[in-house]
Amino acid sequence: MDFINEKEAIVAEKDGDLLWVNLATKERKPISGFPKDLFTTLKLDVSKYPEGTYPKRADGRMVRYNAGILEVLLDPKYSENRKIYVSYVSQKKDRYALKVIRATLEENLLTDIKTLLNPGPYVPGLFHFGGGMTFGPDGKLYITVGERLFYENSKEGLAIAQDLTDERGKIYRINPDGTIPDDNPDFGKDAIEGIYASGIRAAQGITVEPNTGKIWFSEHGTLQGDEINLLKSGANYGWPNVTSGRYRSEGYQPADVPGAEFTDPIHYWLQTVAPTGLTFYTGTEFPEWYGNLIVPGLSRGSLWRIALDGEKVKTVEELFMDKHIRLRKAEMSPDGKLYLLTDEDNGRIFEVVRKQE
Amino acid sequence: MDFINEKEAIVAEKDGDLLWVNLATKERKPISGFPKDLFTTLKLDVSKYPEGTYPKRADGRMVRYNAGILEVLLDPKYSENRKIYVSYVSQKKDRYALKVIRATLEENLLTDIKTLLNPGPYVPGLFHFGGGMTFGPDGKLYITVGERLFYENSKEGLAIAQDLTDERGKIYRINPDGTIPDDNPDFGKDAIEGIYASGIRAAQGITVEPNTGKIWFSEHGTLQGDEINLLKSGANYGWPNVTSGRYRSEGYQPADVPGAEFTDPIHYWLQTVAPTGLTFYTGTEFPEWYGNLIVPGLSRGSLWRIALDGEKVKTVEELFMDKHIRLRKAEMSPDGKLYLLTDEDNGRIFEVVRKQE
Repeated sequence: MDFINEKEAIVAEKDGDLLWVNLATKERKPISGFPKDLFTTLKLDVSKYPEGTYPKRADGRMVRYNAGILEVLLDPKYSENRKIYVSYVSQKKDRYALKVIRATLEENLLTDIKTLLNPGPYVPGLFHFGGGMTFGPDGKLYITVGERLFYENSKEGLAIAQDLTDERGKIYRINPDGTIPDDNPDFGKDAIEGIYASGIRAAQGITVEPNTGKIWFSEHGTLQGDEINLLKSGANYGWPNVTSGRYRSEGYQPADVPGAEFTDPIHYWLQTVAPTGLTFYTGTEFPEWYGNLIVPGLSRGSLWRIALDGEKVKTVEELFMDKHIRLRKAEMSPDGKLYLLTDEDNGRIFEVVRKQE
Repeated sequence: MDFINEKEAIVAEKDGDLLWVNLATKERKPISGFPKDLFTTLKLDVSKYPEGTYPKRADGRMVRYNAGILEVLLDPKYSENRKIYVSYVSQKKDRYALKVIRATLEENLLTDIKTLLNPGPYVPGLFHFGGGMTFGPDGKLYITVGERLFYENSKEGLAIAQDLTDERGKIYRINPDGTIPDDNPDFGKDAIEGIYASGIRAAQGITVEPNTGKIWFSEHGTLQGDEINLLKSGANYGWPNVTSGRYRSEGYQPADVPGAEFTDPIHYWLQTVAPTGLTFYTGTEFPEWYGNLIVPGLSRGSLWRIALDGEKVKTVEELFMDKHIRLRKAEMSPDGKLYLLTDEDNGRIFEVVRKQE
């Protein structure tokens, strides 16, 4: 979700469309012209997958895999150029990969579509595409790309996220037109172009801290290991060689990464949270939250508020514990209202307001 | 810790003495006349225990077992009768049990000591004595008694905490003189006298909610399973037959409890917290905390603040995450200041105040 102005927003539906929404009137219009390689759950032929391959609800429908439109972001000069950026799951036959496009939004039609990033290879599993996007204070586009595995890979040699010749499991920094900035970190001549950081398993949310301009991102662990990280140029966040969680594949032993220096998370949970599209609170409705990191959790359906002291966590609060609604994304409106997007069959948008006593 | 007035308090040291403390001048005096069966870590002959029997610090000293003076509570009419109540670990040769005494505090001497509760049997393990105490709004004394096990017991028949003929793993309700109230719940003629609730593993903290008069208690689980419970007359809190954690003894299967109805916790954590001496916040320093449950955690050394809506948890906040000081007890002073007692080699008392900006 991203805001055109205080009332109008563009919203990415996981199993659906890119929508134009008027939050005041609740009017909504699907945006047409989306690339045809978009893969959503509605296209999934459930009968093709062996029993237990994907998590299922009681009624048998698949809901928890990764697919569909992942994130939408407006250009910082959207009012002038009407450019938007969309990340989504792209399909080629029975294989999938993340794709990030830039397009011009004319009325409710996407035109002038250009692919900015399409980290391969296309592989069968519907896991951990990443697709989190934010503009840094430097005007560059930062994009999270997951390693695409559910279980740890036991292939020979470097793990995907540690292999700088593999496009997955990285964070990218690119120019808004898809070209590579001159001042990206140097990972050597064999490394994939555009890589800004490595050692990523399944990062979704990425956001800029107001005032400091620091970039923070959330990451899903396996069994525990959910993290909040601070993005640094050239950093290696360690997956799978170091993790605060446990491996899903018993006895898994990642290959050594010669000379690697791993960057620790700023915070890791001792329980499964599944942190997603995070943001910094800059509103006035809850003055005591100002500057806190707001992190939606898919797992138990609660919202996490993290108070930082510089790069150190002081307090962590779990909110809406009595609600049990899977939360996908937190976003501040231009006027500083906090909105939440849910991850449900019929997804909803909430504004978070103080309870009237 | 309990307050004589805003400045003077009686403090129970785990490895030490019962102390009179002046919080303003920091003057302290040990209170003499404590029963000689008191067992503290200082009396422990470490060489007698097989390697790995008890958790050890790097220097080999035992710190994390249960022993010493557990809780001190002043009589509601202390200013008139100078009666105090103390729970502690009592030793008989190499065996231990909880003991609760009432005494009169004359100057700094305990006199007129009477044993109110001494749930047996005396057994070797230094685990889970309980010893949490509070006066209910009914003037009765409520006392938590742990089941005294570290691993689950695989004895034949009912588990300790489920066995109403076993004195352990229960919450007691007694008169301040040690007699049994007429209006205690009826558990049948074979049940131990004084039992108010059953199915308790390792409850330490117990406190009364202001305004409602409800009694709340914390409980330690095994691997996870840490809980906050609401005390109800005759309730069975389920241990070990139902738990939100996992058993330490692999393959353990508790015996069925015919006809049992188990009472669920109000809150359970998905991580290990080791919640201890809890209290309700009634101060003015943090108006937004008013009526919240404040729960010290031994495990990671943080403080938990739980906002309730009646008997439902709305939010849970973990505070002081950057401190890593094991916290044993939270207590409100008569004027509404929040004090914390630490669980360290050189334990400290903190007042929690708002940070000066």
